[in-house]
Amino acid sequence: MMKRPFGIAVAQLGPIQPSDSRASAVARLVEMMREAASLGARMVVFPELALTTFFPRYWMSDEDAIERYFEKSMPSAQTQILFDTSKNLGIGFYLGYAELTTDGHRFNTSILVDQTGKIVGRYRKIHLPGHADHKVGKPFQHLEKKYFEVGNEGFHVWQTMDARIGMCLCNDRRWTETWRVLALQGADIVAVGYNTPSVNIHWPEPPHLRMHSHLISLQAAAYQNTTWIAAAGKAGLEDGCHLFAGSVIVSPAGEILAQTQSEDDEVIYCKADLALADTFRQHIFNYGAHRRPEHYRLITERTGVGDPLGKEPDPS
Amino acid sequence: MMKRPFGIAVAQLGPIQPSDSRASAVARLVEMMREAASLGARMVVFPELALTTFFPRYWMSDEDAIERYFEKSMPSAQTQILFDTSKNLGIGFYLGYAELTTDGHRFNTSILVDQTGKIVGRYRKIHLPGHADHKVGKPFQHLEKKYFEVGNEGFHVWQTMDARIGMCLCNDRRWTETWRVLALQGADIVAVGYNTPSVNIHWPEPPHLRMHSHLISLQAAAYQNTTWIAAAGKAGLEDGCHLFAGSVIVSPAGEILAQTQSEDDEVIYCKADLALADTFRQHIFNYGAHRRPEHYRLITERTGVGDPLGKEPDPS
Repeated sequence: MMKRPFGIAVAQLGPIQPSDSRASAVARLVEMMREAASLGARMVVFPELALTTFFPRYWMSDEDAIERYFEKSMPSAQTQILFDTSKNLGIGFYLGYAELTTDGHRFNTSILVDQTGKIVGRYRKIHLPGHADHKVGKPFQHLEKKYFEVGNEGFHVWQTMDARIGMCLCNDRRWTETWRVLALQGADIVAVGYNTPSVNIHWPEPPHLRMHSHLISLQAAAYQNTTWIAAAGKAGLEDGCHLFAGSVIVSPAGEILAQTQSEDDEVIYCKADLALADTFRQHIFNYGAHRRPEHYRLITERTGVGDPLGKEPDPS
Repeated sequence: MMKRPFGIAVAQLGPIQPSDSRASAVARLVEMMREAASLGARMVVFPELALTTFFPRYWMSDEDAIERYFEKSMPSAQTQILFDTSKNLGIGFYLGYAELTTDGHRFNTSILVDQTGKIVGRYRKIHLPGHADHKVGKPFQHLEKKYFEVGNEGFHVWQTMDARIGMCLCNDRRWTETWRVLALQGADIVAVGYNTPSVNIHWPEPPHLRMHSHLISLQAAAYQNTTWIAAAGKAGLEDGCHLFAGSVIVSPAGEILAQTQSEDDEVIYCKADLALADTFRQHIFNYGAHRRPEHYRLITERTGVGDPLGKEPDPS
C-alpha cells in the first residue's frame, strides 16, 4: 500500500500565569512552531485557550475582567506573528483561544490554519464541561458553562494540506459522538487541545485515574475511528492549580507513538503514515459494510438516560 | 453515597474442539457456575458461542453440517442443567450460542437468565464481522456474515436482579454506538461474550495490538458509558487456531479490576459497587446536561464515510 507520510507535531504549553502577557504566550508558541518545522512537521497542534491562563477557574462578574481573556479578532495585532511564521516556514497549525464575536457571542474556539498562514477552518466547542454557578468553598471553579455558549457550527473535517483534518476541544475527546461524526467525514487526523485539572472539584477522584481516562479515551477513539489524533495540553501549576500533561500523538492502531515527558513547553513529533488507517477502513472498520444506523437511533432521539427497552423475548 | 454491591463473575472457557460434545461443554459451564456462586456472584457471564467450537472458521456448504452447530430451542435437553443449576444456586447468567429459529433464521445470540433460571432477555448480534465468501488460501475463515443474519431486535437493557443489565457480543464491543445505546437505557452492567482469533487473516496485524485494542475498547466504553463491563472470552488453541484470552471485569472508572491469567476454563470475580457509576453520571457524564444530539445527526444519517463538511469560516 502506498504510504502517505505526514509530519505531525504537538506543542504542549507549560503554565501561563494570570499576569503573563499575550505577547509572551505568543512568543512561546512561535518558538515551538519553529522547532516543529525544523523537525519536518507539516502541522503543529497547540493547546486549548493557548493565549491565556485557564481563566474558567475564576468566578468573575465584571464584564471587563472577563473580556480581557477573549480575542475580538483573529489574527490580531498580537497573534499576527504566528500567521506570518506559519507562512514563512510553510507549516500549518491548530490554535485554541477564547472567541468574542462582533455581535457579542463568546465561544471556546479553535482554528485550523494551512501552510500559507490562511485560516481554513473554525471549531466552536460543543461539549462544555463544568458549571455556570459559583461553587463557593471549592478550591477553584470550572465555569465553562458560564463564560461560553455551546458551539453552533457542528463537528467538521476540512480537506487541506493533502489530508482530511478535523478539530475538537478538550472535553469533546471523552464523548464518542465527537469522534464518530468526524470519522464519518473521513478524518485522517484530528487535532485536540485541552486544559485538564488534576483535581476533580466534584468528588475525590484519584488523580492517576484522570490521566488514565484521558489516555484510554484517545487510544480507543483513534482505533475505533481510524484516525490519527494529535492532542496538546497546557500543563503544570497555573496560579496554584495543577493541569496534567500527557500530550500525545496516537495512531489508528490505538498506540501512543509520542508523548511528552514534562509539564513545560515541549514539542513532540511523529512522521505519521496516514495510510495506516486504510487497512482498518477496508476491513474491521469498513463502516459501509458493518454499521447499522437503524439500531443507533436512541443516540439522537434521547439526550439523557431513559427507561430500559428490554422486554421478555417472544418465543421463536 | 449508598453502596449497591453486586457480585459479578466472568467464566472464561478454554478451547472447545470440533469433536467435543455439547454435554462436555455444558458440564464445564456448570462447574464454573458453581464456582461463581460459591464466590458470591449474583450473575456469571459465559462467552459467545459457548457450546461449540468457533465454527465460523470453517467453510461449510452442507446444511446439515452447519445446523449441528445451532440450537433449535433454549433451554434444550442438553442445556437444561444450566437452568436448573441457576435456579438451585440462585445465580443468573449470560450465555452465547448459535440460534436457529423455528422459522429458519440463524442468529449469533446471547440470553440473560435471572437467578430463578428464567430467560428474561435475548440479544441477536448486530455487528457481524468477517465475510460471507470463501477466502481460499487463508489459514482459516471468519464467516459470520455467511452463517448469521444481522440481529433484528436492537440493543437492549433489562431491569432484573436489582440492576439494569445490557448485552452485546464480541465485535459489538469495538463499536461506540453499541455502548451509547445501552448507556442511554441506564445500563449498570453490560455482559459481552467473545471469540477473537489472535491472527488477523486480512493483513499482518501484530497480535499484541489485537489484545491492546480489545482492552482499550472495553476500558474506554466502561468509562464513557458509566457502566460495569463483564467480558468473557473463549481462549486457546481450537483446532489449531488461537483465540486470545483477556477476559476482564472493568469498572465505570475505566479500570480493569479482574482479568484472567490463563487460556483455560477460569472464573474471575469482582464484588462490584454499582453506585460507583453514580458520581460520573452526576457530573462529567451527566448526559442530560451535556449531550448535544443536534450535532450527532451524521451518526444515523450516514452509514459509510462521506465527504468532509468543513468550509472556510464566515467572518464573525
